Amino acid sequence: MNHQRLRAALADVVAIPVTPFGADGAIDLSACRALLRRLLDGGVRTLTPGGNTGEFYALTSEERRTVTELTIEEAGERAAVLVGVGHDLPTAVATARHARAAGAQMVMVHQPVHPYVSQDGWVDYHRAIADAVPELGVVPYLRNAQLAGDRLAELGALCPNVIGVKYAVPDAARFAAFAREAGLDRFVWVAGLAELYAPAYFAGGATGFTSGLVNVAPEVSLNMLDSLRAGDYPSAMKVWEQIRPFEDLRAAQNSANNVTVVKEALASLGLCRRDVRPPSRVLEEPQRAEVAALVAGWGI
Amino acid sequence: MNHQRLRAALADVVAIPVTPFGADGAIDLSACRALLRRLLDGGVRTLTPGGNTGEFYALTSEERRTVTELTIEEAGERAAVLVGVGHDLPTAVATARHARAAGAQMVMVHQPVHPYVSQDGWVDYHRAIADAVPELGVVPYLRNAQLAGDRLAELGALCPNVIGVKYAVPDAARFAAFAREAGLDRFVWVAGLAELYAPAYFAGGATGFTSGLVNVAPEVSLNMLDSLRAGDYPSAMKVWEQIRPFEDLRAAQNSANNVTVVKEALASLGLCRRDVRPPSRVLEEPQRAEVAALVAGWGI
Repeated sequence: MNHQRLRAALADVVAIPVTPFGADGAIDLSACRALLRRLLDGGVRTLTPGGNTGEFYALTSEERRTVTELTIEEAGERAAVLVGVGHDLPTAVATARHARAAGAQMVMVHQPVHPYVSQDGWVDYHRAIADAVPELGVVPYLRNAQLAGDRLAELGALCPNVIGVKYAVPDAARFAAFAREAGLDRFVWVAGLAELYAPAYFAGGATGFTSGLVNVAPEVSLNMLDSLRAGDYPSAMKVWEQIRPFEDLRAAQNSANNVTVVKEALASLGLCRRDVRPPSRVLEEPQRAEVAALVAGWGI
Repeated sequence: MNHQRLRAALADVVAIPVTPFGADGAIDLSACRALLRRLLDGGVRTLTPGGNTGEFYALTSEERRTVTELTIEEAGERAAVLVGVGHDLPTAVATARHARAAGAQMVMVHQPVHPYVSQDGWVDYHRAIADAVPELGVVPYLRNAQLAGDRLAELGALCPNVIGVKYAVPDAARFAAFAREAGLDRFVWVAGLAELYAPAYFAGGATGFTSGLVNVAPEVSLNMLDSLRAGDYPSAMKVWEQIRPFEDLRAAQNSANNVTVVKEALASLGLCRRDVRPPSRVLEEPQRAEVAALVAGWGI
């Protein structure tokens, strides 16, 4: 495994593709492939099948494997693939091994859904996954503000293949502190709360950010990345101002419509159906028009 | 389905059995059966395989089915069985159908782990499960303080088999308000935060409570129930005072050691191994002695 190449793939826009569904409720495989090609043609170089924007927790194990295989096929040599794994430890390990067999370069480990997480047990969980696929890069997805940075440092000392972190706590000062406690240079720091937090996270040491919006407008996300890489924060904030109403709709009511709004935007562009699975639900008519109007303003 | 009988089973101590593991890490089936028989012999009449104290999110699908089947076999005619179901909707529906085929009377629907829950989508998710098993009682497990009571009322109007609710928000006033908004008499209200919140929840209209502590000391939980049924709050609070240090250990650090402490207590009594699965971890030595000393004081 070439860690340097994988680290570079994380220091980028880390796209979380949606999973489009057909009228029958099953995954629409051809829409799925078409959207992935659109991302690749738009310049995206890192793809995460099995992320939250892909409705990871609404897919069955079999569907998750299908999405992984299909994403790796479409990516070919054009993009690095980071596969989301999670659930109970035997399932997470099996998913990581499947990702390896299918040709993925990395796995992203979802925040454990288990309600009783000890800090020691957090290390145990991630270590077991990382040890099962030593050839792959491993990226913990952290949404828990309580986890201490030294625990991630401990994991990193045990597992050289834990190369990056997706940090997703809505507190830029907490992020900056955590990254320093864990090792700013030891890991690639990916801003896990997408474009609205990316400038603040980059100020604190992040070099990549995840995105759901990129599904709709790849060039918008890549523009922000270019500005942030150049240290041009005023330009990055121009993009921020442009997309804020859209991202605010996604974040409202504890992110109730986070994926729904992205799929609505794609539907307004004729790129896939708007359907999402429970416990999400499609928007009502007036909100649909609002999303379409916002996206129309981006000149896609 | 006799709703009245099921409602009575919820207005009781709703035990959440642990899942003991062997030295090889697999479920210890004989210890599992022995602990279930101990609960039944102790007077417990409602069992929940696949609850959080059973490490639901650390078990594979196959293991969850094993625990369900084994619990139903041990319960026989002596107890009602309420099977925990969750994850993505196809999996939840399949798990509910398996529970029905295995002979369970009810399912408890875990709080969706999906990060993007709309209130409409919450109804959709539960309705799809309830509609798939109309012969079974259905009990949503609510940990989300944001859900509005009228959404549960809506679900109840659509699905007559949604007969009870496990409410687990650490705010007794919120519980009392929610129960009234949703329909105090329409549902059986089960206090979902166990003994420490049971008196306050009973004051607000609950008639049953869930318990993990019951694994260790069935008579302690049943004593509290008797007192609460009699409206004898001072006696209930005597039990509360007796178990508080134990339950506080379980609740500390965001419940990091919630199940760990219960299994440690069972290990101190020689009833099963202390092992838990990641992301939980066994206690260090000094804490083990502390748990053993607490339990020794209960005269089991």
